[in-house]
Amino acid sequence: MPSYKAPVADTLFLLYDVLGFDRHSNLPGFADAGRDTVETILEEGAKLCEKSFQPLNRSGDLQGCVRLANGDVTTPNGFKEAFKAFAEGGWIGLAAGPEYGGQGLPHTVAAAINEYASAANMALAMYAGLTQGAIAALVLHGSDEQKKLYLPKMIEGSWTGTMNLTEPHCGTDLGLIKTKAVPQGDGSYKITGQKIFISAGEHDMTENIVHLVLARIEGAPEGTKGISLFVAPKVLPGADGSLGERNAVSCGALEHKMGIHGNSTCVMNYDGATAWLVGEENRGLAAMFTMMNEARLGVGVQGLAQSDVAYQNAAAYAKDRLQGRSLTGAKEAAKPADPIIVHPDVRRTLLSIKAFNEAARALVLWTAIRGDVAHVSEDPKERQAGEDHMGLMTPIIKGVITDVGFDNAVKAQQMFGGHGYIAEWGMEQFVRDARIAMIYEGANGVQAMDLVGRKLPRDGGRAIMAFFKEVDGFLKDNAETQGSNRSSSR
Amino acid sequence: MPSYKAPVADTLFLLYDVLGFDRHSNLPGFADAGRDTVETILEEGAKLCEKSFQPLNRSGDLQGCVRLANGDVTTPNGFKEAFKAFAEGGWIGLAAGPEYGGQGLPHTVAAAINEYASAANMALAMYAGLTQGAIAALVLHGSDEQKKLYLPKMIEGSWTGTMNLTEPHCGTDLGLIKTKAVPQGDGSYKITGQKIFISAGEHDMTENIVHLVLARIEGAPEGTKGISLFVAPKVLPGADGSLGERNAVSCGALEHKMGIHGNSTCVMNYDGATAWLVGEENRGLAAMFTMMNEARLGVGVQGLAQSDVAYQNAAAYAKDRLQGRSLTGAKEAAKPADPIIVHPDVRRTLLSIKAFNEAARALVLWTAIRGDVAHVSEDPKERQAGEDHMGLMTPIIKGVITDVGFDNAVKAQQMFGGHGYIAEWGMEQFVRDARIAMIYEGANGVQAMDLVGRKLPRDGGRAIMAFFKEVDGFLKDNAETQGSNRSSSR
Repeated sequence: MPSYKAPVADTLFLLYDVLGFDRHSNLPGFADAGRDTVETILEEGAKLCEKSFQPLNRSGDLQGCVRLANGDVTTPNGFKEAFKAFAEGGWIGLAAGPEYGGQGLPHTVAAAINEYASAANMALAMYAGLTQGAIAALVLHGSDEQKKLYLPKMIEGSWTGTMNLTEPHCGTDLGLIKTKAVPQGDGSYKITGQKIFISAGEHDMTENIVHLVLARIEGAPEGTKGISLFVAPKVLPGADGSLGERNAVSCGALEHKMGIHGNSTCVMNYDGATAWLVGEENRGLAAMFTMMNEARLGVGVQGLAQSDVAYQNAAAYAKDRLQGRSLTGAKEAAKPADPIIVHPDVRRTLLSIKAFNEAARALVLWTAIRGDVAHVSEDPKERQAGEDHMGLMTPIIKGVITDVGFDNAVKAQQMFGGHGYIAEWGMEQFVRDARIAMIYEGANGVQAMDLVGRKLPRDGGRAIMAFFKEVDGFLKDNAETQGSNRSSSR
Repeated sequence: MPSYKAPVADTLFLLYDVLGFDRHSNLPGFADAGRDTVETILEEGAKLCEKSFQPLNRSGDLQGCVRLANGDVTTPNGFKEAFKAFAEGGWIGLAAGPEYGGQGLPHTVAAAINEYASAANMALAMYAGLTQGAIAALVLHGSDEQKKLYLPKMIEGSWTGTMNLTEPHCGTDLGLIKTKAVPQGDGSYKITGQKIFISAGEHDMTENIVHLVLARIEGAPEGTKGISLFVAPKVLPGADGSLGERNAVSCGALEHKMGIHGNSTCVMNYDGATAWLVGEENRGLAAMFTMMNEARLGVGVQGLAQSDVAYQNAAAYAKDRLQGRSLTGAKEAAKPADPIIVHPDVRRTLLSIKAFNEAARALVLWTAIRGDVAHVSEDPKERQAGEDHMGLMTPIIKGVITDVGFDNAVKAQQMFGGHGYIAEWGMEQFVRDARIAMIYEGANGVQAMDLVGRKLPRDGGRAIMAFFKEVDGFLKDNAETQGSNRSSSR
C-alpha cells in the first residue's frame, strides 16, 4: 500500500526562505500568516490529509461511486466522514472572507493545503476544491443576497459547489451551448438541458449542492455572447438557508472513467430547474472564468500532487527493493543484492522527478503569493503586476505541471518494474488519476493557445516582459552567489 | 466503441517497395512468400483480427479473467472461440517448421500478423504470442523427443506456452532465483517454488499448458550460472501426446493489473511439479533468452500496435467531432463548428503519431527480414550480419517503440478531450494496455543497459558500424532523390 507524507518543511522553506511571504505582512490576511502560525496550520492540514484522506485513496478507487435507481449517488466508504472532518476543520474556507465564516488567510496557504489533499486523495479533495472554486465565483459575481445565502453554507462545507459547462456536443467550444434558461418573471429562471462530466454533481456527503450552470436565456445572441451564469441549488433554500423542495436537477448517469473513481462524475439533467442569474445577463462566460481560472491553478496543483506522491513511493521502493549490484561494486555485500537506488538510471529518474516537483511547487506558491497581493494590495501597480503574473502563469501551471506531472507518475511507476503495473502497489492509480489533469479545465492544447494567443501578446506583452525583467534582476542580484555556487560544486 | 483496420497496404508497401522482401526468394520459406501470396495471407489475418479479436477487446477488459476456487481460470467470454479460430487457421504456426505442422513462412509475415492481432486485442493476442515464443525456445533447445511431443500440439494451438522467470523477490536479477529442481533419477525433476507475473499461466482455452520454467537444480552454483530451463506441462502427457495426470503446478492467484485484463496473469505455485530439463544443466538462462529475445521483439510490436489503433481512432474522431473554427476561417460553414482536425495542434499530434508508426513498422519488418535471413541463409557472412542486426535492434525495438507507443496512445487519447477519459470510448484502455509493454520482458531501463553495455561494444562495435555503413550507403545512393524531394516540397 502506498503512503504519503506532506512536504511541510519544503513548503515553509519556499514561502519564507525563498519567496519572502512575510514581506507582505502589512497586507490584510498576511498579518495573520506569520511563519509559526503557517507552520502550525500546514502541520495540522498535513495530518488530516495523511491520516484521513490518504487511507481512503485506494479503497475509493476500488469502490468508486454508485448511482442508485432514484438518481442518488453514494460515495465510497469513509468519504463522507473525511469530507466532514475537512469541512469542520475550516479547511474549505481557509482563504474565504471572515464575514462569511472563512479564515481570511491568504490563498497561498490554501494552495499548499490543496496540494497535500490532492496528493493524499485526489478524488476526495476535488469535492472541496470545486466548492472553493464556486465560492470564488460567487464572491466576485454573486449579488449580496446570493453571497449571504450561499457562501456561509459552502464555506462551512455543509453545501458543496459544482461547475456545469460541458454538454455532450461541446466542451472547449462553449459557444455551442444549448441549455436554455426561461425567465419566470419573479427574478428566477427555469433551466432545461443536459450537462456532462460534472464533477461532484451528485453525492451523499452534504445536504445540498450548489450548481453554477452556464445556459442561454431565451432569445439571447448566438455563440459565447449569449451565455449567462446561473445558480441552481439541488434543494431550493429559503432566504435563511433552510432547505425546501428538491429542485428539478438530477444525476442521469455516472461516467465510467480511467481514474478518480472516488469522484462522482455526473451527467446532470436540468428539467426546468429553478435557477437565479449570477452577474449580468449574457456575461456568463466571463463570470464562469473566475471559477475556471481558480480551477486551472488547482488542476496544476493536482499534477504536482500526483507527481510528488508517486515520487515519494518510488523513492521508498528504490531504497527497499534488492535487485542487481552496483556497477561500481556491491554496496550492501551482506545482502543478496543492492537496493535498486544504486543504479544510475534509477537515481537519475528519481532526481529528475524531485527537481521538477520542487520547481513546480515554487512556481505555484510564487504565483499564489502574487495572486494574493493582487487581491488585497492597495497599490494599483502592485495589483496590476500580480494580475498580469497570474494571467500569464495560469496556462503554464495548468499545462506544464499536469503534462510533466503525469509523465513523472509514469516514470515513478516504472521504478517498480512489474509491481508498478499491479493495482495493490498503488502506482498505477497515480498514473490513472494524474491523466485527467491534462484534460479537464481546458485540455492542455487549449492552455497553449491561451498562453500564446492571449497571455503573451496581451497589453503589448506587459506580463511576459515584467517576468523577464524579474528573472534578469534576480540573476544580476545573485551573480556573485551563482559564481560561488559554481566553484563549490566543482 | 473503437474500431480497427489492419494496415495491410502499408505492410505490403514496406515489404516489397521499400525493404525488398522478394530479393530473398532463393531462401527457404521466402520462395512461398511472393507478393500475391503474402497479400492474401495478410488480408485473411487482418479479417480475423478485425472481426474476431477486436470486438472482444473492450468486453475482455471489462470482464477480465476469474480464478475459481479450485484454481481454474476462466477467460473473458468469446476468448476461447477466438483463440480457437486463430489456432485452427494455422496462424500460431505461421513461421513454424512444416515438419511439426507449421506453415514454414518467414517470421516476417508472422510479425506483421502479430501487429494486427495485438492492435485488435492485445490481451488475447498474448496467448498466441507466448506460445510462439515457447515454440522458438523448444525448437532451439529442446531434445528431439521434446520437439516431437510438444511442438505439434503448440503449433496447432491445442496446447499453449508460458515463460516462468519472475519470482516475488526477483525479476531483472534472475541470479536470485530460488525455485528448486530435484532430479528423480529417471530423467525427470520435481520443481518447487513460486513464480509471479506468469502471463497465460492458467486458462480455459486449451486442454494443456506447456510451462517453460527457470529453476535451480539442487547443488547448482549460485547466481545465474546455476539456473536451468525446464518444461513442466500442466497435464502430464504420454509420449503420444495423450493427456494423463494433472501435474503439481497450479495458479495460486490472479494479479489485479492496470490493463491487459483479458490476459490471465498468474501467481504459479510449483509443488513438486514433474518437469524435464530443456537444453543443458545450468545453461537455462541462455536458453530462456531465445524465448526472451523473441518476446522482446513481440513486445516492441505491441507498442506499435497500440500506437496504431489509438491513432486510427483519434484520426477518425478528429474528422468527426465539431468544435471551434479554423484559425484561417470556417472550413465547414454550414455546420455549427469545424471538425477539430482543422486545428494545427490536432493535425501536428496526429501526424507525429502516424509518422512514428510508419517508421516503427519499417524498423520491425526490416529487422524481421534480417532475422529470417540469419536463420535460413547459407552464406555465413549474411547469417552473421543478420544476427548482429537482430541483436542490436532488439533493445531498440523493445525500448523505443514501447516508450513512444505509450506516449502516442496518451496523445491520441488527448484528442478526445474529456471523452478520452471515459471508458466507453476505449482510448483509456489503449493507454492502460500499452503501459505494460514498457515494463515486461525487461523494463526499458534494462533495454538501455543491454544496448549500451552489450550490443554496442560487442565484437568491437561490429553491429553498429555495419548499421552506420548501411545508412551511409543508402544516403549516398539516394543523394539525388533527396535533393529533388527537397525542391519539390518547397
